[in-house]
Amino acid sequence: MLKEFVPAVCPEKRALNAERKSLEKQLGDDQLRITAAKLPVMVVFEGWGAAGKGTVLSKVIKDIDPRFFKVKSFGPPTKEERAYPFIRRYLLDIPENGKFTFFVPYMMEEVIGSVMSGRLNEEGYQQTIDEINTMERSLHDNGTLLIKFFFHLGKKEQKQRIEGLQADADTKWRVDQEDRNENKHYHDYEKWYDRYLNDTNQSYAPWVIVDAGTDKKWSELQVLRFITQSIDTALQNKGLAVPILQNRFPLVQEPKLADVVLDGKVLEEGVYKKQLKACQKKLAGLQNRIHRRGIPVIIGYEGWDAAGKGGNIKRVTEALDPRGYTVHPIAAPEPHEKNRHYLWRFVEKLPKKGDIAIFDRTWYGRVMVERLEGFCSVNDWQRAYNEINEFEYDLNRWGAVIIKFWLQIDEDTQLARFKAREANPEKQWKITGEDWRNRDKWPQYEQAVNEMIEKTSTTFAPWHILESCDKNYARVKALNIITEALENRLKD
Amino acid sequence: MLKEFVPAVCPEKRALNAERKSLEKQLGDDQLRITAAKLPVMVVFEGWGAAGKGTVLSKVIKDIDPRFFKVKSFGPPTKEERAYPFIRRYLLDIPENGKFTFFVPYMMEEVIGSVMSGRLNEEGYQQTIDEINTMERSLHDNGTLLIKFFFHLGKKEQKQRIEGLQADADTKWRVDQEDRNENKHYHDYEKWYDRYLNDTNQSYAPWVIVDAGTDKKWSELQVLRFITQSIDTALQNKGLAVPILQNRFPLVQEPKLADVVLDGKVLEEGVYKKQLKACQKKLAGLQNRIHRRGIPVIIGYEGWDAAGKGGNIKRVTEALDPRGYTVHPIAAPEPHEKNRHYLWRFVEKLPKKGDIAIFDRTWYGRVMVERLEGFCSVNDWQRAYNEINEFEYDLNRWGAVIIKFWLQIDEDTQLARFKAREANPEKQWKITGEDWRNRDKWPQYEQAVNEMIEKTSTTFAPWHILESCDKNYARVKALNIITEALENRLKD
Repeated sequence: MLKEFVPAVCPEKRALNAERKSLEKQLGDDQLRITAAKLPVMVVFEGWGAAGKGTVLSKVIKDIDPRFFKVKSFGPPTKEERAYPFIRRYLLDIPENGKFTFFVPYMMEEVIGSVMSGRLNEEGYQQTIDEINTMERSLHDNGTLLIKFFFHLGKKEQKQRIEGLQADADTKWRVDQEDRNENKHYHDYEKWYDRYLNDTNQSYAPWVIVDAGTDKKWSELQVLRFITQSIDTALQNKGLAVPILQNRFPLVQEPKLADVVLDGKVLEEGVYKKQLKACQKKLAGLQNRIHRRGIPVIIGYEGWDAAGKGGNIKRVTEALDPRGYTVHPIAAPEPHEKNRHYLWRFVEKLPKKGDIAIFDRTWYGRVMVERLEGFCSVNDWQRAYNEINEFEYDLNRWGAVIIKFWLQIDEDTQLARFKAREANPEKQWKITGEDWRNRDKWPQYEQAVNEMIEKTSTTFAPWHILESCDKNYARVKALNIITEALENRLKD
Repeated sequence: MLKEFVPAVCPEKRALNAERKSLEKQLGDDQLRITAAKLPVMVVFEGWGAAGKGTVLSKVIKDIDPRFFKVKSFGPPTKEERAYPFIRRYLLDIPENGKFTFFVPYMMEEVIGSVMSGRLNEEGYQQTIDEINTMERSLHDNGTLLIKFFFHLGKKEQKQRIEGLQADADTKWRVDQEDRNENKHYHDYEKWYDRYLNDTNQSYAPWVIVDAGTDKKWSELQVLRFITQSIDTALQNKGLAVPILQNRFPLVQEPKLADVVLDGKVLEEGVYKKQLKACQKKLAGLQNRIHRRGIPVIIGYEGWDAAGKGGNIKRVTEALDPRGYTVHPIAAPEPHEKNRHYLWRFVEKLPKKGDIAIFDRTWYGRVMVERLEGFCSVNDWQRAYNEINEFEYDLNRWGAVIIKFWLQIDEDTQLARFKAREANPEKQWKITGEDWRNRDKWPQYEQAVNEMIEKTSTTFAPWHILESCDKNYARVKALNIITEALENRLKD
């Protein structure tokens, strides 16, 4: 893309300034339009060192009220950040609905930096590109406008800029070793930037190359033109349905809920106690080993109300060192969570390498409660199966063990447990009107759960159905599945 | 405290287990009581390496539902964390109202580690202790229950424990160089732990020394006893008023709002443009210098509605590199913010060393809107002047430049601006019913603002009144105050 780039013609000074002023004002108005439409806008500034990204950005945001935008800058990842998936820190700052986030720079600098220093090989590079494209599509499909600029400079121009900055004590600090290195190996970098631009240039997140070698005001105008245009287009397209992609992941078949045999799945108390103790001891040992090996573990619990998720989780955590695991109880999203991509609050809660994250309810709310209560559109939840598979696929490639449980009971068992809870003053808080209302929708939920398990039980993140009419049985089964999964992973 | 410590008598096995079981159950019930009372509970586990803090904690939380607690563990601060005040990361995880957070370990390990390695000298140590005590008192006074355990072991016992852990491949990783070092220099550490315990042992956050050398179940029982007792006491005392402390900070006198002369504080357009440009250029240069020197800058804006805060801030930010500043527009707190100490959301937004944070409305909401609308108790806002002074004092000692602006206009000017906003379709969003309602309370606000300025204009964080009937005048005055403050700071 860089080689083929032909800059537009820069207007003469008067016309340039007139158009700039007019578009700056336009962008000031656009902030209200995107707020009204709840459109989140991500603007990415990447490009050559000393190309003036910061200076141009400070002009671009001049007429946006601070309530409507954030600026986020990324340096090399810290040790702490390296303990999480590469993409996590870039996702944490995505804009809320109706707001701008300007990223300067974003992911390109880290990716190409890792390639050039040899930390990322060809396979790693391709995997990273795949993750970036998947994430950007998912952001787009869920309503985010993505705008990406590459600030382009020739080798000679960059050299002049660097020397100019270095000559002034006040701007000297803006030039670092990385910039000088980039200029020295300009053509190697150019080759890689070009490849990166090509590899991540998608209709849902296109690159715009900015001629940054001529004049800062001209750079600004190019940026303003594209942002205002893109907002127009996005507002027109707002709410359009997005194609549902074909599944491309290997699936594991599980029985329909109606076919799950619950009878006889019982452990009598004495056997239970013995088996529980043995499983917990084994798990404690495995936690040590996965901790030492830096393997992240993600365990998700879903199931009917009163199926016994809490007690099941407790039998798992009893075995664990509390410094190495976290239980995340998932309730309805808070406002700042609801205003972002539905996976955002889960990305925030991912475990570090070597840690265990247990989710008491999960991101599958999208295809259950959000689907049935109409909290998202039909297109949204239909698309979510693939989005979630992609999310889990990338977590698995990162190295995570992913285990998903569905706690299955029948309607009569649920009724008996609801009544028992109501009769027990200490457990009354666990049962609310919502539980009764959900119960009325049992057939709809059953259909949704069947579809969910069918479409998202992948080889790398399979669902396990836990027969939970007898809680003892379900607990020991869960522990056995977890220990087996960890043992298998430790063999690798 | 350690030398004088006489362990309680450990009950014989049967009584021990009976009491443990009973208190575990009690704690399970307490979770509902603290939720009902919206009491946040912080439990700190500190002590000797290999004293069994993790193991005991995993037993203690066994009967608490994961919805009601979090466990947070701290290692040495990362480079990123070192760019913020020492105390910030410890504050970010304080519990929400009605929940537990268990810290294992908390601040002691970092503080004594820094002392032993020579990174913290006597003066730094005393300053740190002062900050910790101030923070713990402020948490307590605003309704948090603080419980702090020190797990105590003799030198010989610790050595045995370490050797025991090392002998087993699965537990070997739990012992680090730090633990071995601690045992080798046991008496030096003991001296410092003892000092730390004495220095931070306050009635609002008392230490309990746990005999951790006898038996894990006994350790657990001691912990359970104290937690359940403390919850009882805290629930009884909930809502009690707290003494208002005498001011101990040097104050700067500012005029009452009624005495501020607004007439004639005008800059004519030509002069304004010239002065604005000169000030902005100067500020841009200063930003570079404070960035290089790693000086954090905090600028707070308060003022009457329509006094021109937004435009004033814009003239400041126009001069700045967007990678080095953030504007934080402060609205009503979100639920997860309202559920914590009122300064929490501001601690989260503090600038890194070398960065500038601009607050469009600030933590002074506590003594203005929260006071006048009854969002907090009288005791709460009366106490807040001192709490805020302490907060700013510690930020100043950390190295921050703190500048606070009050934008002053008269009632007629406000009325004219409100009407102009309503008449302008592009600015209508800026004016709401709330603005009109606030206007009706002008006299009450004026009284609150006078009291606020009188009590919180300290030498290290003074208020500056900006006469803003002419916005040009106010903008240039603000820029001059900022550049002067930065220049003064750079002279140090």
